[in-house]
Amino acid sequence: MGIISGKEYIDRLNKLESEIWFDGEKIKGRISEHFAFKGVLKTKASLYDLQNDPILKDEMTFCLPGQRERIGLSYMQPKTKDDLKRKRKMMEHWARATHGLMGRSPDYMNTAVMSFASSSAILNNRENCFPENIQSLYKKAMEEDLSFTHTFITPQVNRSQFYLGMSEKPISAKVIKHNQNGLIINGARLLATQGGLTDELLVISAPKLYFNKDEAFAFSIPSNTKGLRFICRESFTGGESSFNHPLSSRYEEMDSIVVFDNTLVPWDRVFFYNNVEVATDFMTQSSFYIFAYHQVVSRQIVKAEFILGVAQLLVEAINVVEYQHIQEKLSEIIIGLETMKSLLERAENDAILDEWGCMCPSMIPLQVASNIFPRIYPRFCEIIQLIGASGMISIPTEKDFESEIRADLDQYLQAYSMDAEDRVKLFRLAWDLTMSPFGTRQTQYERYFFGDPIRLSSDLYRSYLKEPHVEKITKFLNLKRKTN
Amino acid sequence: MGIISGKEYIDRLNKLESEIWFDGEKIKGRISEHFAFKGVLKTKASLYDLQNDPILKDEMTFCLPGQRERIGLSYMQPKTKDDLKRKRKMMEHWARATHGLMGRSPDYMNTAVMSFASSSAILNNRENCFPENIQSLYKKAMEEDLSFTHTFITPQVNRSQFYLGMSEKPISAKVIKHNQNGLIINGARLLATQGGLTDELLVISAPKLYFNKDEAFAFSIPSNTKGLRFICRESFTGGESSFNHPLSSRYEEMDSIVVFDNTLVPWDRVFFYNNVEVATDFMTQSSFYIFAYHQVVSRQIVKAEFILGVAQLLVEAINVVEYQHIQEKLSEIIIGLETMKSLLERAENDAILDEWGCMCPSMIPLQVASNIFPRIYPRFCEIIQLIGASGMISIPTEKDFESEIRADLDQYLQAYSMDAEDRVKLFRLAWDLTMSPFGTRQTQYERYFFGDPIRLSSDLYRSYLKEPHVEKITKFLNLKRKTN
Amino acid sequence: MGIISGKEYIDRLNKLESEIWFDGEKIKGRISEHFAFKGVLKTKASLYDLQNDPILKDEMTFCLPGQRERIGLSYMQPKTKDDLKRKRKMMEHWARATHGLMGRSPDYMNTAVMSFASSSAILNNRENCFPENIQSLYKKAMEEDLSFTHTFITPQVNRSQFYLGMSEKPISAKVIKHNQNGLIINGARLLATQGGLTDELLVISAPKLYFNKDEAFAFSIPSNTKGLRFICRESFTGGESSFNHPLSSRYEEMDSIVVFDNTLVPWDRVFFYNNVEVATDFMTQSSFYIFAYHQVVSRQIVKAEFILGVAQLLVEAINVVEYQHIQEKLSEIIIGLETMKSLLERAENDAILDEWGCMCPSMIPLQVASNIFPRIYPRFCEIIQLIGASGMISIPTEKDFESEIRADLDQYLQAYSMDAEDRVKLFRLAWDLTMSPFGTRQTQYERYFFGDPIRLSSDLYRSYLKEPHVEKITKFLNLKRKTN
Amino acid sequence: MGIISGKEYIDRLNKLESEIWFDGEKIKGRISEHFAFKGVLKTKASLYDLQNDPILKDEMTFCLPGQRERIGLSYMQPKTKDDLKRKRKMMEHWARATHGLMGRSPDYMNTAVMSFASSSAILNNRENCFPENIQSLYKKAMEEDLSFTHTFITPQVNRSQFYLGMSEKPISAKVIKHNQNGLIINGARLLATQGGLTDELLVISAPKLYFNKDEAFAFSIPSNTKGLRFICRESFTGGESSFNHPLSSRYEEMDSIVVFDNTLVPWDRVFFYNNVEVATDFMTQSSFYIFAYHQVVSRQIVKAEFILGVAQLLVEAINVVEYQHIQEKLSEIIIGLETMKSLLERAENDAILDEWGCMCPSMIPLQVASNIFPRIYPRFCEIIQLIGASGMISIPTEKDFESEIRADLDQYLQAYSMDAEDRVKLFRLAWDLTMSPFGTRQTQYERYFFGDPIRLSSDLYRSYLKEPHVEKITKFLNLKRKTN
Repeated sequence: MGIISGKEYIDRLNKLESEIWFDGEKIKGRISEHFAFKGVLKTKASLYDLQNDPILKDEMTFCLPGQRERIGLSYMQPKTKDDLKRKRKMMEHWARATHGLMGRSPDYMNTAVMSFASSSAILNNRENCFPENIQSLYKKAMEEDLSFTHTFITPQVNRSQFYLGMSEKPISAKVIKHNQNGLIINGARLLATQGGLTDELLVISAPKLYFNKDEAFAFSIPSNTKGLRFICRESFTGGESSFNHPLSSRYEEMDSIVVFDNTLVPWDRVFFYNNVEVATDFMTQSSFYIFAYHQVVSRQIVKAEFILGVAQLLVEAINVVEYQHIQEKLSEIIIGLETMKSLLERAENDAILDEWGCMCPSMIPLQVASNIFPRIYPRFCEIIQLIGASGMISIPTEKDFESEIRADLDQYLQAYSMDAEDRVKLFRLAWDLTMSPFGTRQTQYERYFFGDPIRLSSDLYRSYLKEPHVEKITKFLNLKRKTN
Repeated sequence: MGIISGKEYIDRLNKLESEIWFDGEKIKGRISEHFAFKGVLKTKASLYDLQNDPILKDEMTFCLPGQRERIGLSYMQPKTKDDLKRKRKMMEHWARATHGLMGRSPDYMNTAVMSFASSSAILNNRENCFPENIQSLYKKAMEEDLSFTHTFITPQVNRSQFYLGMSEKPISAKVIKHNQNGLIINGARLLATQGGLTDELLVISAPKLYFNKDEAFAFSIPSNTKGLRFICRESFTGGESSFNHPLSSRYEEMDSIVVFDNTLVPWDRVFFYNNVEVATDFMTQSSFYIFAYHQVVSRQIVKAEFILGVAQLLVEAINVVEYQHIQEKLSEIIIGLETMKSLLERAENDAILDEWGCMCPSMIPLQVASNIFPRIYPRFCEIIQLIGASGMISIPTEKDFESEIRADLDQYLQAYSMDAEDRVKLFRLAWDLTMSPFGTRQTQYERYFFGDPIRLSSDLYRSYLKEPHVEKITKFLNLKRKTN
Repeated sequence: MGIISGKEYIDRLNKLESEIWFDGEKIKGRISEHFAFKGVLKTKASLYDLQNDPILKDEMTFCLPGQRERIGLSYMQPKTKDDLKRKRKMMEHWARATHGLMGRSPDYMNTAVMSFASSSAILNNRENCFPENIQSLYKKAMEEDLSFTHTFITPQVNRSQFYLGMSEKPISAKVIKHNQNGLIINGARLLATQGGLTDELLVISAPKLYFNKDEAFAFSIPSNTKGLRFICRESFTGGESSFNHPLSSRYEEMDSIVVFDNTLVPWDRVFFYNNVEVATDFMTQSSFYIFAYHQVVSRQIVKAEFILGVAQLLVEAINVVEYQHIQEKLSEIIIGLETMKSLLERAENDAILDEWGCMCPSMIPLQVASNIFPRIYPRFCEIIQLIGASGMISIPTEKDFESEIRADLDQYLQAYSMDAEDRVKLFRLAWDLTMSPFGTRQTQYERYFFGDPIRLSSDLYRSYLKEPHVEKITKFLNLKRKTN
Repeated sequence: MGIISGKEYIDRLNKLESEIWFDGEKIKGRISEHFAFKGVLKTKASLYDLQNDPILKDEMTFCLPGQRERIGLSYMQPKTKDDLKRKRKMMEHWARATHGLMGRSPDYMNTAVMSFASSSAILNNRENCFPENIQSLYKKAMEEDLSFTHTFITPQVNRSQFYLGMSEKPISAKVIKHNQNGLIINGARLLATQGGLTDELLVISAPKLYFNKDEAFAFSIPSNTKGLRFICRESFTGGESSFNHPLSSRYEEMDSIVVFDNTLVPWDRVFFYNNVEVATDFMTQSSFYIFAYHQVVSRQIVKAEFILGVAQLLVEAINVVEYQHIQEKLSEIIIGLETMKSLLERAENDAILDEWGCMCPSMIPLQVASNIFPRIYPRFCEIIQLIGASGMISIPTEKDFESEIRADLDQYLQAYSMDAEDRVKLFRLAWDLTMSPFGTRQTQYERYFFGDPIRLSSDLYRSYLKEPHVEKITKFLNLKRKTN
């Protein structure tokens, strides 16, 4: 089979009839027609269609050796630096089509599945491990162009570092028993973006302090598995008018809480379970994080370009380009953007083959980028707001422009470089990007994409090779350091 | 007459039938029942009722000498420091009742009208000036407990400092002619908060570069004056559920563009016109800004207290109090709050009588406070978001808690110090305060309350008495400074 | 006796012949003539002379009830708010005379001695406590106008929080034994500013984690006590030319390491020893910190005024006042200064009598000020550098102006508002204030005056009354908080 | 001839007997023995010796086609990307030998001379231009391994943007007449680093507002030209002890004011004069800035590595690695360092041949780096100070360790990972790097290396290609932009 079309994606999803709850009701009927999901599903479908676009096809897909079927390039295991750049180019196409605003474009999880498969040897011959199940899932995913989401975050009852997280009834999802058919899972995970909007849900455990055996597992199951329930948050779609809400009407992805209610995970879907050491190794030694960073940084660069375009257009619209502080603010965006681009380029230049033959980008530049973006993205949004100033508030609607007061708006909201309607479109875009529920969720999302920024910064410090620089000083001052 | 009740306020407003446009339609019927306005009107009504509350009446109202009628204290001209503190206490009552989230509580404009009246002598015997009209409006306002809004901001076509703002057809509201009945105004003003939701609209010109005669005027007219049109922005009310949207359901005030379509301003409503010098003097020499700052700073302190309460409750809910960076973030809020309180106290301690016998707070501490708040308020909101982290996204709704999945929510969203429902209430509050359209508009509003922060900072620099400090250095180094 | 003159201070100090080491040599002869100390001693002497100045005498001194002898006001126990303001005025006189640059002007420690005396009842009837010794020292200090320094900081071998600080040979000063004559102390303390330049050295223990009995003591001994040794750092005096080094030639105070080499502390000089609980109580319940904060904040305000004067004079000299970013930078200084002033004023307004009848300023505003200044002072210095730009580097010397190249300097270094010589004087002042060893030590000193800024911020958070604000939210949302 | 040795450099310099004034006296005798210059000259000599080092020779030198003489690689015109990387490697050798602390290592100006020569065709056939003189200077420089400094900055009398800079007697250096022998120059330039410590002084005009003809020139003359005078600032050398002042004793480069006192510039040394257009073109179209940025960024990276080494060693010394805020601060340094490295790498990867066949690094990444470093370097220094805390003050001297109090120091200043002497060495290094006059001058130097940071940021904004990003938004929203 190989790559699917947007229509196929939507049809398949509608057929699943997964258990999704929204505002107190279980969704019935076609999910692609529900107001909270129709925008994002239409957009995702358009991404699948890009794979079939005659012009882009070569850049979006590849063939396995000796086969003629086109497969999504997001599933390709890069073997050379050129493969890596080709992969990034594919990711840019999808990111550009969505301005970097869709965090869960298919390449994100497809890449994750690929990285799991390419590192599955970590599981070989270890207790309660089934590397072959990863391989068969990877194969199935390529053949059927499966869509995935995943869920990392455990419930936030108590974030004290001294908290052990025990309670009688499971809160965080855990294996409560296993039988001949598979594992039985009970409990919850928080924040599956696009939860219920994909064919599959991949569940994996991130290492943590006080990591219990029964939480140390990884598997993937269809979204419509019995006992699997997605509870959505309030929708951040502003409505269907792309004039009024140009972004949220298209890119609002939804987040949901995932509930496992005695959910059976069949054995052939289990990657590993009941093995804390393996769970830790798999997250820290596989190429998962490296490729995840690579995809995310590529997308964030496109998003930063989008921000720059919006900022510059605002500046032109109200003609404030002459102000020094405006120039400073825009150059701040440029500096951030060019920094991210340079870090990504270096990560690709310094890529090396891992022990399983996969060409992996260099980690440190990507880690640095992932420390930078959570800090600069909120500032970018603030800059947009500072340029727009009170203009971010005076935002009439599409219907206002269709009514008899249009003449007032045309006269009083005209801008220096555009007419009133275009100016309102532009300011509504700026508002949707930075001040709407969609926009503020984007900010929070980028802030926490890879988790707590403070931990990210400690991780970078710890993994960075400091000794050569220390050594230089030691020699210069002729110091005798004690070895501890 | 004197003070009115909430019901009287709403009845009077419904009767006005002012021309208000919302999403392409002219509002018909009772405005107090329109979904976009019912919340804020109910809240405003409750503020009027506070004036009639037996317990608070003494602190909320006063009597003119020799009269028995209770009048809103917001109209009182302070003559002593005690009057000033009494006035502030009244403002705190209203601010506390709305957590400082209502920018246009009645005291804001009532104080403005009082300050205009008390400084009206500036207009005496000057061309095109009618100080008596200010006095009679002030009298009428006290007698009828009138509500006001005002509008300062001119359309933002072109913010270049070299732009003269001329165009054939008026854009910025101006006097296009005057006749025996009054002035005829054409053009627009931007951003009247609560535009159409008050008895009166006060229109006054802020001095600017290239200040033309025909824009140099001040007057007050009823909101339902013929040819006066309010064009609302999209509503930021999230709906009527105070569970889901505890703030926007109550405090969303609406902003509107004000259009003058050959609007007649009767002579007895004109304060002055066609006099650039007077317009400048009136804004810079009257006590308007001083009292406006005093009211705003008092309200902002209550808002900062509210922020502190929310932040601390979040910290308790998820039990993160032990983290040093959390303690630092909360102390940042405390530092901001205590700084504002100290500046306000000093402004009151150093109050002096102006030349017309009004006890005016000291300007510099209030100017300093007004330079500080636009910087710290956005940071406070960021701190709330940083504490809430991913918890700001997992926010189910009231109906979710009324449905059969409640048990899931109860189990998986429970917090350290509260149950799931309370935790969701709290996080929804935090979200509504900082991430909803209501919340982000509040941030933008505080950032620009007194205009461009860069200009505020230049104004402070210029008005500050630097010479004594310079003089000390000059003596210390024995310098001969040239006088320029 | 009572107040002394500058000459008496210097004569007494020269007579002490304390053991002071400087650059590998023990100082011999009159310390007041040593190049590293002459500047600061001359300046300190001038402060004592201010007490005898006929014009200032009333504001600098007081008489004990029923006595005619003038005593330094810095020793007065304030009983009323007026006393407190009078005390602050006295401190301002001394601070102004030294531009706030002398951290150890006599009022700092005199106030400390006064606060110890006024709170000495904390020691009554407790083990190993001698409150009467505090009283007699206080009496003696007033009678003889004694000068003091003190030392808090323990050696920084290992700042890990898990470090217990044990070693065979004492590092941190501790009681190694006691006999009929007194305590025997061995070990060191770091950073006694003006160590050896005062009559007395007050030694007291700050509570800490792993607080051992043998480190829990307090006493005061003459600087020339046998076995007491002061080891100075490198001098930051730039030389004697007040043209070249206007500040360091006058205000460089020196810091020293204090070594106790089997030093005997006579019993009548011991306040307490061997009592961890008392040591903790004395530092946390006495008025010591409150009065120390009050003195320090008063001085810091004068220093901020000095900074503002220098900044403004630089701006005038090179005529950059028109630049928006310059105005912003200066207003930043103004905002900092006015904030500090307001916090101090509120601390005095809200003063209350403590249980022993001493009128104590309110702590929270002072704590807030002490969280703010360590952050703004380094920024103030940066602003000075940003204004001065490359002009901070082109700084010829006094001798250059006395040589035949003076004509070149006169022509090429002239400034907009002053001649070349004055401009060089001014820029040298700016350099000495922010870029010389003296200046950078001042920055570090203000940053750490009350210890680690991170701890200060945690302390503020913990001591602040947050409950009323939390309570308001709890009511608003109708929450049921669990009590923990 | 070609490359010289350190001794040759010093001998040649001593022979020059240029007119250098220091602290009011004209320097007589060998400059290499003067306390203010001996350190830096010895260090510079060691850099010349590196060119002769058998191991490094190949990486430090090259031969012109068909010649066998070794020439300093800093003079090589890169023709390929490999040349460019080779050139950078050479610069790293020199930078590492001086920890990036010598701003005027020979490669800085040698590269400038090379870039002038390679772009000299800009001057072809234009009025008052002598491109052949650039070529012959370049040839001479290579043959004799000449050392250069230059001077850009004009006197800072009045930095108002409205100031025309006219005065009767020249202030800024200008051509006052020309005759058959050459140009006669009068006036001054500020801030020639190493002024008088090089064979030649290159003088060139940076374009400016109100650029007068008589200031539009470029030339190079020997430092001992008659009528050329260098007026030094105070020396920032702390003395000769490398224990006490490990950096300033070696790397203090001195800055001087350059006075032209009717100085004759012979015609064969003039590049151009009296041509404002050419002066502007030469600075904006030649490869000068590109190569200057390339050299500077390469050096700054080495400096950032040095900072990281010092910071990490401090952290180890006092064992504070466990603190989260310490880890954050160190990761801030790592992020800055890695960002700079990535920008440099991208500039080299994207290098292109200019129209004259020279392989030029890409400008935008270097411009971005040059906007970043002036902001992060002062912060790096602050981080060093924040880690060192009060330990930055307790710094005894070499002689203290040689005296009888050494035992005290050994005991009381010992550190977790090193003994007292090494700890003091390390903290003195940290102090010399960030708090000594040498250190603060370094900070100011990096802040202003390429001029006013605000201008740098405007330049970046203006030169950046924003249109593609704007175009994307325009299409997305289907806007009709007016062309202005």
